[in-house]
Amino acid sequence: MRRVGIIGLGNVGATAAFNLFTHGYCDEIVLLDVNEAKMQAEAIDLLDTLPVNEHEVKVYYGDWDKLGEADVIIAGFGVKVTSSSEELAINSRNARSVGEKIKASGFNGVIINIANPCDVITTVLQRTTELPKNRVFGIGTMLDSVRLRRVISEKLKLNSKQIGGFVLGEHGLCDFIAWSTVNHDFSENEQAEIAKQAKENAEKLIGGKGFTNWAVTSAAMELVRSVLTDEHFYTVCSVYVEEYGIYLGFPAVIGKHGVEKIAQLSLSSDEELRLQEAVALIKEHLTKID
Amino acid sequence: MRRVGIIGLGNVGATAAFNLFTHGYCDEIVLLDVNEAKMQAEAIDLLDTLPVNEHEVKVYYGDWDKLGEADVIIAGFGVKVTSSSEELAINSRNARSVGEKIKASGFNGVIINIANPCDVITTVLQRTTELPKNRVFGIGTMLDSVRLRRVISEKLKLNSKQIGGFVLGEHGLCDFIAWSTVNHDFSENEQAEIAKQAKENAEKLIGGKGFTNWAVTSAAMELVRSVLTDEHFYTVCSVYVEEYGIYLGFPAVIGKHGVEKIAQLSLSSDEELRLQEAVALIKEHLTKID
Amino acid sequence: MRRVGIIGLGNVGATAAFNLFTHGYCDEIVLLDVNEAKMQAEAIDLLDTLPVNEHEVKVYYGDWDKLGEADVIIAGFGVKVTSSSEELAINSRNARSVGEKIKASGFNGVIINIANPCDVITTVLQRTTELPKNRVFGIGTMLDSVRLRRVISEKLKLNSKQIGGFVLGEHGLCDFIAWSTVNHDFSENEQAEIAKQAKENAEKLIGGKGFTNWAVTSAAMELVRSVLTDEHFYTVCSVYVEEYGIYLGFPAVIGKHGVEKIAQLSLSSDEELRLQEAVALIKEHLTKID
Amino acid sequence: MRRVGIIGLGNVGATAAFNLFTHGYCDEIVLLDVNEAKMQAEAIDLLDTLPVNEHEVKVYYGDWDKLGEADVIIAGFGVKVTSSSEELAINSRNARSVGEKIKASGFNGVIINIANPCDVITTVLQRTTELPKNRVFGIGTMLDSVRLRRVISEKLKLNSKQIGGFVLGEHGLCDFIAWSTVNHDFSENEQAEIAKQAKENAEKLIGGKGFTNWAVTSAAMELVRSVLTDEHFYTVCSVYVEEYGIYLGFPAVIGKHGVEKIAQLSLSSDEELRLQEAVALIKEHLTKID
Repeated sequence: MRRVGIIGLGNVGATAAFNLFTHGYCDEIVLLDVNEAKMQAEAIDLLDTLPVNEHEVKVYYGDWDKLGEADVIIAGFGVKVTSSSEELAINSRNARSVGEKIKASGFNGVIINIANPCDVITTVLQRTTELPKNRVFGIGTMLDSVRLRRVISEKLKLNSKQIGGFVLGEHGLCDFIAWSTVNHDFSENEQAEIAKQAKENAEKLIGGKGFTNWAVTSAAMELVRSVLTDEHFYTVCSVYVEEYGIYLGFPAVIGKHGVEKIAQLSLSSDEELRLQEAVALIKEHLTKID
Repeated sequence: MRRVGIIGLGNVGATAAFNLFTHGYCDEIVLLDVNEAKMQAEAIDLLDTLPVNEHEVKVYYGDWDKLGEADVIIAGFGVKVTSSSEELAINSRNARSVGEKIKASGFNGVIINIANPCDVITTVLQRTTELPKNRVFGIGTMLDSVRLRRVISEKLKLNSKQIGGFVLGEHGLCDFIAWSTVNHDFSENEQAEIAKQAKENAEKLIGGKGFTNWAVTSAAMELVRSVLTDEHFYTVCSVYVEEYGIYLGFPAVIGKHGVEKIAQLSLSSDEELRLQEAVALIKEHLTKID
Repeated sequence: MRRVGIIGLGNVGATAAFNLFTHGYCDEIVLLDVNEAKMQAEAIDLLDTLPVNEHEVKVYYGDWDKLGEADVIIAGFGVKVTSSSEELAINSRNARSVGEKIKASGFNGVIINIANPCDVITTVLQRTTELPKNRVFGIGTMLDSVRLRRVISEKLKLNSKQIGGFVLGEHGLCDFIAWSTVNHDFSENEQAEIAKQAKENAEKLIGGKGFTNWAVTSAAMELVRSVLTDEHFYTVCSVYVEEYGIYLGFPAVIGKHGVEKIAQLSLSSDEELRLQEAVALIKEHLTKID
Repeated sequence: MRRVGIIGLGNVGATAAFNLFTHGYCDEIVLLDVNEAKMQAEAIDLLDTLPVNEHEVKVYYGDWDKLGEADVIIAGFGVKVTSSSEELAINSRNARSVGEKIKASGFNGVIINIANPCDVITTVLQRTTELPKNRVFGIGTMLDSVRLRRVISEKLKLNSKQIGGFVLGEHGLCDFIAWSTVNHDFSENEQAEIAKQAKENAEKLIGGKGFTNWAVTSAAMELVRSVLTDEHFYTVCSVYVEEYGIYLGFPAVIGKHGVEKIAQLSLSSDEELRLQEAVALIKEHLTKID
C-alpha cells in the first residue's frame, strides 16, 4: 500500500489530498493540520467521495505516527503573510516543529516541500529530520518553469510536455529563466515577450483569485508520482547542490529515493551570475533563521 | 471533442473544472462567472497545469456563445446565504438570467444543476431554456445518498460502490432515507444509528471547513460521465417526475440524453408520506418565485 | 512498490501483463513461463512500450525469487487440451510444480488462479504452497457471471456494473445461474432467453477466435485491484467454502488479504441441488489427482 | 461521442481495440475484418468485458457505414508473408479495396495506417480515399524510434518519455537512427552499442513470440490520442514530405486534423544520404504497384 502524508491543509495541501484521492496515485493518505476541525472536515469530505470515486483510498488524520510507514510526505504547512521576513520567521519555526514530529514518527521516505521560502524551509526540514539530503527536496522553481513552458507551448503550438526549459534560483525573490536550458531557439525580443507573458499570467492569476492552487498542486503530483513509481524524472526543483552548498532551484533527476542526480548544466556567464545572486540571497536567509 | 461548460466558479464550480481537467473527462472546458477577474484567474491556473497534466484540455472563458456546442453544462452559480428564503430569491433570479443566456447560445445538450434550492433552480433552468425536461436535471439528494452509502459501507466493510440506497425528496430541507431502496437489511436501531452517523458527518464537515466541495464535485463528475459516455447509470438526482408534476430527488437512469427513465419504486406508506411533504414544500417554493 | 507475478504467458497471462502495464495497476511485474524465449520476448515487448506508456513499470522475468516480495500472483499456466481428463492431469501436475516454486520463493501474498479446471487447480496451489486458504482463490465462475450481467444489462438498458447476479458451481462442467442472486426480476421465459443468449455469445466467441482473453483478463484485473487496494469487493470466484469442504464458485468479499468473507446465500432448493452436483464433481476430480 | 474504426483484427488490430476499450480513449469502436466469425468473436469478447471495465464503450462490427462518423481509423489489415514483394502486392491490393470502402462511407476524419510496407500502403490509402494528405499518415518508423529511446533510457537511467530521438526512413527495409535528432550526446562507440542493443531486442522479440503487438499498439494509441485530443504531439511517423514528394518516416506534429506540421531538420550529410536511399526505395515500390 502506497502511503502519502500531507502536512498542512491549506489551498494546496487540501487540493493535493483530493487529487491523490481521485486519481488513486496512492492507497492511503494521512492528513495533518494544526486546525483539528478543518482536518477532520477534509477527511470526511474525502471519505464521502468514495462511493463516487474511481479508486479505493484510505484516509487517516491527526495521527503523526502514521507517517512512520509513509512513502512520501508533502509539506504544505506554509502560511502566507504579506511581509516576506515574517513569512520566513513563521514558516521556519513551524518547519522545525514539523520536522521533529516527522523524525519522531520514524519516517524514512521522501519529503517534498511546498512551503515558502521554499529553499530555506526545505533546508530546515532536512536538518531537523536528519534525513539524507537526497530524500528531502522542495518544489522550488518548478511552478515557474511549468508556467514558462506553457507560454512557449502556446507560442509554438507544440505540446507543452515536450517543451524543455527551466527557471532557476530562488523561487519568488530571485529566480530567472535559464534560456540555455530551453529546447527551442528564440530571439532576444521573443525571449522578452515570453518572459513578459509568463509574468502577466502569474499576476492576473494572483490578482483574480488571491492564491494559486491548481498548477502548483499538479506539479507536486508529478513529483509524488516520480518518487512512488521511480520515474527517473528530469525536472527543476529545490535540491541540494554540493557546488553551492545549499538548496536552490536547479534541475535534477527524481526517483524512488528522491533526488538521484543533479544536472550538469552549461550556463551562460550571465546565467551563472544570476544563480550566484540567488545563492547569496538564500544564504542570507539561512543566516537569519540560525 | 467533448465540451463541458461551467457556470459559476465557486468552491464546487472551480473544483469541477480542475477535476474535469486533470482526469481528461472532456476535451474542452468553457468557464463562465460574473466575476471576470476570478474567471480569468481560474483559466490561467488551469492552463498553467497543462505541462504537468496527464491530458490535453482546452479552456475558454467568458464567451457564452461557446456553450452552443457544449455537450454538458454544470450550473454551479448558486450563492450561499444564511437565510434560505433569500437564497431562493437570489438564486432563482440568477437562474432566469443564466437560463436565457444558455438559450441564446443555441445550447442543445444536457444541463446538470448544482445550485440550491436544487429542485426549484432546476425547474427555473428548464423553463427558461425551454429544453426538454429530460435534458435538465439537478444533483438533488445524490450527495446525501452518497454520504449514506459511505456510512453503510464502513459499517458492513463492503465496497461503497456496491451499496445501493437512496435519500429522496428535497435536498436540504425535506429529505429522508428511503430504507426500502437500500440493498442491505438493518434493524430499526441500526437504521437510526446509520442516519445519525451520516448527519454527524455532514455537520462536522460544514463546521470544520465551512463548505463542502470534494464529494459534491465528484458526484457531479459521475453525472457528467454518465451523460458523456452514455452510461445508463442508475442514481438518485433531481428529476422531473410526471406523477408529482415537479422536479425532486428521485432515482432515475442517466445517459446520453440526460434522464432516460424514472424509477418505479415500491415505497412504504411512511416513505410515500414523506415524499408528499417534499412535494408540497417544493411546490410552495415554486409559487413563491412565480 | 506494488509487485505482481504472472506465471504462464499464454493468451490470458500475456494480456494480463500488458493490461497491468498500460494501466499502471502495479509498479513491478514478474514474468514466468517454461518457454524462456517467449518469456523474454514478452518482457522486451512490454519494456519497448515504456516511451509510449502512461505509467512507469518495471519488468523482471525468469527469476522465481522475485516472487518473494510480490503482493499478488496470477496463475495462468493452464494448458488447453480437448480431453478434460487430460487437462486435469497435466494442469494439476504443473500446479504442484508451480506451487512448490512459489513456496520456495517465500511468497506471502495472494494467489489468483486462472488455470482450469479452476476449483481443482486452486486447491492444488493452496495445498502445495501451504498458504492460508483465504490467500489462494481462483477466478471460478466469475467470467460466466460477468457474461450473464452483460446480457441482462443489454436487455434492461442499464449499466452492467450495477447489475448483480452470479453463476455458481464448477466453471465449465457444472455451473448454473443462481437467479435468486440476480437483482432484477425475470419471468421463467425471460430467464431462459437470457441464459440462451449468454450461452450463444460464449459459443460464437470460442467458435470465432478459438480462445477468450479480453473479458477473462479484465475480470482478473478486477480481482488484482481488489487485493492491491483492499477494495472489499463482492464477487463470485473460486473460494474455499467451509460448509462444503472444497473450493468452488461462490460469492465472497475480496480485499487486501484475499478472501475476507464468504457470502451467506438463501438459495432456492433447486439451486442448492445444483450446487451439490458441482460439489460432487469437484470432489470426484480431487480424488482423481490424489 | 468519439468514434474509432479498426480495420483488420490481427494481433495489432485486436489489441488496439482492447486497449481503446479498457482505457476509454474513445466512446465507440467499429470493428471490421474479412473474417466475419473472428470479427464477431472479438466484439463479443469486448462487450463481455463491460461489467468489469472502467469505461462504458459501444462496439459495432461489420458495418462500413459506421465509419462515416468516425474520428479516426486505424488501418491494421496488413497480412504478413515471408516474401516482402508478395507482402507489397497483397497489402497494396487490399489497401485499394479498403480505401474505396472508407471513401464510400463518407469518412472525413484521420486515418492512421499500421499495415506494411507502411509508407507505400499509407500512400495507397491516401490516393484511394482522396482525403487531404495531412489526414492520412502511417506509424512508419515510430516503433523503431520508441525502441531506440527505451535503450537510451536504460543506459542513462532517465525517463524514456523525456528522451528525444528518431529513426527515419522506410520502416523495416531502409531506416536509420538520425543521431542528430537525439537529445543526448554519445560517442561513436556508444552509438554503435545502442544501435546493436536495439537491434538485438527486436530480434529476440520476434524470435521469441513470432510477432510484436504491445509496443506497436501503444505507439498507435499515442497517435490516436494525439488526434482525438488535439495534442500537437511531436513524433516521427510516416508522413507526406513535400520536399521528397512521398510518404516516409519523418518527424511531424500531430493534432486534431492529423499532420499539422512537418519538422525542419538539420540532418548531417550522411543522414541526408541515407534518407535519399529510403526515398529511392519507396519510389521504386510505388512504381511496382502502379
